[in-house]
Amino acid sequence: MDFEKFLELMSEGGFFYPSFEIYRGKAEVGGFYDYGPLGVELKRNIIEKWRRVFIYPYQDFIVEVETPIIMPKIVFEASGHLEHFTDAIVECTKCGRKFRADHLIEEELGKRGISIKTEGLSLEELDGLIRKYGIKCPVCGGELGNVKPFNLLFQTTIGPYSDNIGYLRPETAQGMFVSFPRVFNLMGRKLPLGIAQIGKVGRNEISPRQGLIRLREFTQMEIEFFFDPENAKCPYLDELDVKLRIIPERDVAAGVKEPREFRPKEAVENGVVPNEWMAFFMGLATIYMNELGVPLDHQYFLAKLPEERAHYSAASFDQMVYSERFGWVEVSGHAYRTDYDLSRHAKYSGYDLTVERRLATPKEVIEARVYPNPQRIREVFGNEMAKVMQAIGRADPRWLASELASRGKAVIEGYTITSDMVFIKEERRKVHIERFIPHDVEPSFGVDRIVYVTLEHAYTEVNGKPLLRLPPDIAPIKAVVLPIIKKQEYVSIGKRIFKELSLAGIRAVYDDDGTIGSRYAKYDSIGVPFAITIDDKTPADNTVTIRDRDTKAQVRVNISEVIRIINDAVLRRLSITEIAKSMGLQLIVRE
Amino acid sequence: MDFEKFLELMSEGGFFYPSFEIYRGKAEVGGFYDYGPLGVELKRNIIEKWRRVFIYPYQDFIVEVETPIIMPKIVFEASGHLEHFTDAIVECTKCGRKFRADHLIEEELGKRGISIKTEGLSLEELDGLIRKYGIKCPVCGGELGNVKPFNLLFQTTIGPYSDNIGYLRPETAQGMFVSFPRVFNLMGRKLPLGIAQIGKVGRNEISPRQGLIRLREFTQMEIEFFFDPENAKCPYLDELDVKLRIIPERDVAAGVKEPREFRPKEAVENGVVPNEWMAFFMGLATIYMNELGVPLDHQYFLAKLPEERAHYSAASFDQMVYSERFGWVEVSGHAYRTDYDLSRHAKYSGYDLTVERRLATPKEVIEARVYPNPQRIREVFGNEMAKVMQAIGRADPRWLASELASRGKAVIEGYTITSDMVFIKEERRKVHIERFIPHDVEPSFGVDRIVYVTLEHAYTEVNGKPLLRLPPDIAPIKAVVLPIIKKQEYVSIGKRIFKELSLAGIRAVYDDDGTIGSRYAKYDSIGVPFAITIDDKTPADNTVTIRDRDTKAQVRVNISEVIRIINDAVLRRLSITEIAKSMGLQLIVRE
Repeated sequence: MDFEKFLELMSEGGFFYPSFEIYRGKAEVGGFYDYGPLGVELKRNIIEKWRRVFIYPYQDFIVEVETPIIMPKIVFEASGHLEHFTDAIVECTKCGRKFRADHLIEEELGKRGISIKTEGLSLEELDGLIRKYGIKCPVCGGELGNVKPFNLLFQTTIGPYSDNIGYLRPETAQGMFVSFPRVFNLMGRKLPLGIAQIGKVGRNEISPRQGLIRLREFTQMEIEFFFDPENAKCPYLDELDVKLRIIPERDVAAGVKEPREFRPKEAVENGVVPNEWMAFFMGLATIYMNELGVPLDHQYFLAKLPEERAHYSAASFDQMVYSERFGWVEVSGHAYRTDYDLSRHAKYSGYDLTVERRLATPKEVIEARVYPNPQRIREVFGNEMAKVMQAIGRADPRWLASELASRGKAVIEGYTITSDMVFIKEERRKVHIERFIPHDVEPSFGVDRIVYVTLEHAYTEVNGKPLLRLPPDIAPIKAVVLPIIKKQEYVSIGKRIFKELSLAGIRAVYDDDGTIGSRYAKYDSIGVPFAITIDDKTPADNTVTIRDRDTKAQVRVNISEVIRIINDAVLRRLSITEIAKSMGLQLIVRE
Repeated sequence: MDFEKFLELMSEGGFFYPSFEIYRGKAEVGGFYDYGPLGVELKRNIIEKWRRVFIYPYQDFIVEVETPIIMPKIVFEASGHLEHFTDAIVECTKCGRKFRADHLIEEELGKRGISIKTEGLSLEELDGLIRKYGIKCPVCGGELGNVKPFNLLFQTTIGPYSDNIGYLRPETAQGMFVSFPRVFNLMGRKLPLGIAQIGKVGRNEISPRQGLIRLREFTQMEIEFFFDPENAKCPYLDELDVKLRIIPERDVAAGVKEPREFRPKEAVENGVVPNEWMAFFMGLATIYMNELGVPLDHQYFLAKLPEERAHYSAASFDQMVYSERFGWVEVSGHAYRTDYDLSRHAKYSGYDLTVERRLATPKEVIEARVYPNPQRIREVFGNEMAKVMQAIGRADPRWLASELASRGKAVIEGYTITSDMVFIKEERRKVHIERFIPHDVEPSFGVDRIVYVTLEHAYTEVNGKPLLRLPPDIAPIKAVVLPIIKKQEYVSIGKRIFKELSLAGIRAVYDDDGTIGSRYAKYDSIGVPFAITIDDKTPADNTVTIRDRDTKAQVRVNISEVIRIINDAVLRRLSITEIAKSMGLQLIVRE
């Protein structure tokens, strides 16, 4: 693969290119990319395809929401991102330049022929490597300072008060956790419940590289899938006709590099994947990447070892896809976040995030009950007494008991409650229902990386000419209208067909400039699956040919059928050869 | 209209609700809203409709891009937002609370029965009003400080260096200006060229209110439409079958409140709208809002007086739509930004943003030409000489001449060039081509406001029951599948139909819970246009009825036809009555 040619096609064809090009050299703008006209369409098609695989077939229990990119500080205190979402940074004591410590160490030692893996190392261990190998600033040769944590959240201020800190979300996920009670209510208080979101996130990388692979601002597609851990059966698991290629945790630990194949259910039964829903989404992820044109042997799931996992995850798999340019690239992450996030948000918000589980057999429990002391409440709160009593009634009694025991007071909806205002009694009861915090598995996709690997997989060269074999439903432009020569009669028919395609909402191009061969080559290179050619027969019998990008085969059809055929081919992902067969049309091979 | 009922439907139905509800009271989170499952679909349909009105029919010269939300500081220095994008703020000297000065004055005087318009007043004038009327802090009664400007850009830091400031864009527009040369090249260097973008923006409002109408984070749909001001004809103007209702600038100045009607071309000829492209987009905007369900007499364009316009605009119209709750609301702004933005970016970036115009008759011009002085360049730059000579060759000679004249030096691509390194000669030449900076008109839509007014216009009550008459292509859920009673045979047929709809990508719901009447009412209230009912005839003859939300009329069709009929009705925006007529089916009126 000729990467120079490929990347030139990406930028000159209008797929993607670095942002703020006119300010290059005047502003530090690494890690930001624009999508051009073709890139926008491609990205949208890739997103819509995701909805068709992950949401639409399961729309009775997976729904989409949209929550803000900017979130207040308390959300990330609760989520743990303020504490944990860091990279190790090291600053040159001489020139003041800053570097991502792990990358710097790997690169500098790489130059000396030493190969070291830094993933999961502590700040002290990274520091130790720098001292041990005497690594210096690669720019000025200066001494490096101590390795420190650098938080990757983009920080801002909400409103006019400078202490009201907000952050750009580093994952869409927190929006789903924070709105869980609202969406759970909307959807009839039933589990399982998947809440999906597609949107922008920001990660303030220290020194982003690798184009679309590591951006400071990028798009995620995520599902937070909430379920009862005591009833984690997925009824759709057997419907999935796919095998998972996995390097399980024990193989990773043993240094095995080859994935093994499992049927989704088998992966759960063998203890490789911790629950059925996780295996289900890993199956869908495999199918999804395959439908984007990534063959199965170019994908596998890599288990993450405990020290490599995010702070919230009890088990994680990275879906790796092969890139000729970047090697194996993570396109999606599958994390078993358990009840970590909801529990933390319950703690930080004081909001009850438990749900009910109906027990098959009733259970005897000891329950804390709270009885307010009206007299004392009236003494302290006067005519706000009724409101205070109601607030106490809404509080979680276990939480209240533990607050009063440990701190002697509890703040409920702004009211400070002390031990003398309530009686807490433990009562033994038979219950048919118990409350628990749902568990969560999260499939999380990076759209921009998927755009990249989709394009790389579609790219090939035939006789030195680029050909982009994007599936018809993914291709940004579906059809190009080409008068075989620039003759007024052909031009006006061509423009009319183009207008009709445009009004039907089909993404198309009209082009009458240059030889027909050079135009075919041009639109092959940007992945247009179907070329509609107006030729000498057209004015006579109102027919055009439709040419298939990949096989170059053509069929002759009536102009009035063009829109229906193109729509059908796009929707059903069919080539013109397949369409022709289904319509009983004869193929023409002209080239 | 019962707003309590309407707003409850909006939140309980899952259209929209305030973000971060569980943290209310613990974080200042005004101005952020979530879209629930129905809201996400509705918003997406409204956006797709916009593409179908503004982009797809004109896809040969209007293209979409996607650029980052975070942009470096220099972009907003160039755009003028750092200087001009402010609101007036005033702080209480006693309690420290901050208020938006204009709103505070209007509200406090309103309480005294004094009506004052503050739009366009200077900081001094606002200060004057506060002193004149002795306005105090409405919370603590304290003395107010001086009115100051407050910049509405959300600020952040890009990367590890704290002086590398970035901002969240307050409009998508700057992304199109900054990438103009790239997209202009991609599209064959032709004018006119529209560059569209749909995406999130942030405006750090001092005290946001009014729900979806004034958010701190919201979605815009914008086109920056670049054209040659000497050739501003729009060939599509006469195709538009619409009248523009406008209160022109002179009427606004004279206090006239009633809009007048103009055909688009007439509005330009009468000097009401400054150019044809602007009138064209105002026409499309009228049609667009109308297709979302806003009648023509609920819309007009309000001209902005010079002191009311944004700093970049030579002429502006706000498209106002009537809201029962909020009065007239601006849903789109139409600004004639001239060459302001591109000129500023050319100045700040040093990048040539001119394009060519071929002259009908050649023109004699005096042109500055630059001849490098190789000897002197070699003395200063040594073996970098060739690079420096090339850099000089790429520089704009007029800019270079003016830099050398005013500052004695010029920095080109990092090289400092002094007067002794070049000869600048003025030459008289006949030219067939001249260079100019394109002019720009901008139609800019606020999606969230449009979602709100669309919902408000769709809402009605019939016999006290809510009915949401959203057009079929806009409605979030297209069909609900309802077994008339919960009988096993009906349920399994219903679930099968639901599954088929889901796999076909049609947004649908299945519901067998409650009486058929209450279920019809429930789905009427959230705007589902078509109800598919499984009844006693279904198992016998494989037919179901499809009921129309608005007319309650039903048709009986074969199950195998359901998907095609629903798809057709959605795509063509047809009621079941219309579909039945076109298929020759008999209507049933059962209720």
